[in-house]
Amino acid sequence: MAAAVQDVIMLLGDSITQGGWEPGGFAQRLAHVYARKLDVINRGLSGYNTEWAIPVFEQCFAKQHEQQHVPTVRILTIWFGANDAAIKPSPQHVPLPDFISNLTHLVHMVTSSSSAHYSPKTSIILISPPPVNTYQRDADLQSRDPPKLLDRTFEVTRKYAEAVVEVGERMKIPVLDVWTALYDAAGRNERDLDKFLWDGLHLNAAGYEVMYEGLINTIKEKYPKLHYDELEPVFAPWAEIKWDDPTESLKARRTVREK
Amino acid sequence: MAAAVQDVIMLLGDSITQGGWEPGGFAQRLAHVYARKLDVINRGLSGYNTEWAIPVFEQCFAKQHEQQHVPTVRILTIWFGANDAAIKPSPQHVPLPDFISNLTHLVHMVTSSSSAHYSPKTSIILISPPPVNTYQRDADLQSRDPPKLLDRTFEVTRKYAEAVVEVGERMKIPVLDVWTALYDAAGRNERDLDKFLWDGLHLNAAGYEVMYEGLINTIKEKYPKLHYDELEPVFAPWAEIKWDDPTESLKARRTVREK
Repeated sequence: MAAAVQDVIMLLGDSITQGGWEPGGFAQRLAHVYARKLDVINRGLSGYNTEWAIPVFEQCFAKQHEQQHVPTVRILTIWFGANDAAIKPSPQHVPLPDFISNLTHLVHMVTSSSSAHYSPKTSIILISPPPVNTYQRDADLQSRDPPKLLDRTFEVTRKYAEAVVEVGERMKIPVLDVWTALYDAAGRNERDLDKFLWDGLHLNAAGYEVMYEGLINTIKEKYPKLHYDELEPVFAPWAEIKWDDPTESLKARRTVREK
Repeated sequence: MAAAVQDVIMLLGDSITQGGWEPGGFAQRLAHVYARKLDVINRGLSGYNTEWAIPVFEQCFAKQHEQQHVPTVRILTIWFGANDAAIKPSPQHVPLPDFISNLTHLVHMVTSSSSAHYSPKTSIILISPPPVNTYQRDADLQSRDPPKLLDRTFEVTRKYAEAVVEVGERMKIPVLDVWTALYDAAGRNERDLDKFLWDGLHLNAAGYEVMYEGLINTIKEKYPKLHYDELEPVFAPWAEIKWDDPTESLKARRTVREK
């Protein structure tokens, strides 16, 4: 019975999104700076690919006739590819053309006026998967009991990341290209990605810092009215409360100016 | 348009709750361990006392006829007193009898079957304010421009903390007594509270760690079915997805067993 008093940022993705709640993770950082402005709803699902994400997203994102009752999703991040790019025989593998069409479908669900989930108030940001450090990943998998074979390659994940950028360009949706941001930050050297990944696949706090800075810059550039500095807190700062007769000054306010 | 697919933990309080989104804060820690089970909705409002919290809570907590559309609040923490205990002439000051009746009112809003906000599925935890380190608080206020006079006393805040414990006992609502937990952890020495408070009033990461451990223990003891280890993720772990025909296995599940 949480009333829909505050709009939200929804984070859709895999384990790299789910891990955003770690200290220094991007969900934690967003929740901190957007406190009292937008709630952060983490729909990161460890191990998931775009194939499994579609039926999940259908359940997580309200249909048009339900939208009046529930919080408006102001920002939606869609961050997949790390599992889709797993190589066969991994059950997580999604062929590149299917990955592209799934990502396109996820975006259309929100942007197409004929979609049951159509939501013109939602601003989408696509995010490319991080580069894989196969040295680190291989060592991690070898250390397991029983040991596992390497299930990602540097080049395949790069192709999935490039596909995210292309989908964004084609659909005119802003893209946060985490693959390139992290690879550049590592001096374009695969082994040096260990500064940003803890197991060759998942971001550590330094990786999330790079990603978060890019995300805030993307918001600032592409959706400036949704930057946290541009939003009013839903409930007034306490110094603005009318202390002798507070009722009016304590009414929830619209934090986002409508398009 | 975030569909009500996942139930929530709502955190109602002042700046010490709002700051729970800091790295190591209790909101961040809860969001991390309850990921995919319960969302964390932070309704901490810096500077607020119980007087101002009542009209805010009326807007944040759905009325009975709205509850079918919105996420169920499974756990509600109510953490006030730090500002109510400010001494006159602070506009934040709430006299002790009023603090007690406000806190009682907030609980009744959820637990009383005659309340518009009645919600028998919500489990409440009351939290007492932390002890004030007046040495630290005074130094902090003196360092401001212009300098401010000390606005809290150790003994007054202690009385408000004791009142929270009494309200909980009287109403049979579990209490997390943060005042005592932190004072004990500091060897019952006011000056040594600087290990847990960064400005004499607000918790640092070490303070939140003590508080969080106490909170999880309270959940485990008083509401064991709501401990994160007892809840199923709403969406199945990926290894449990039926890869050849995933639809059924990707349906959202009830994470909490009903009372």
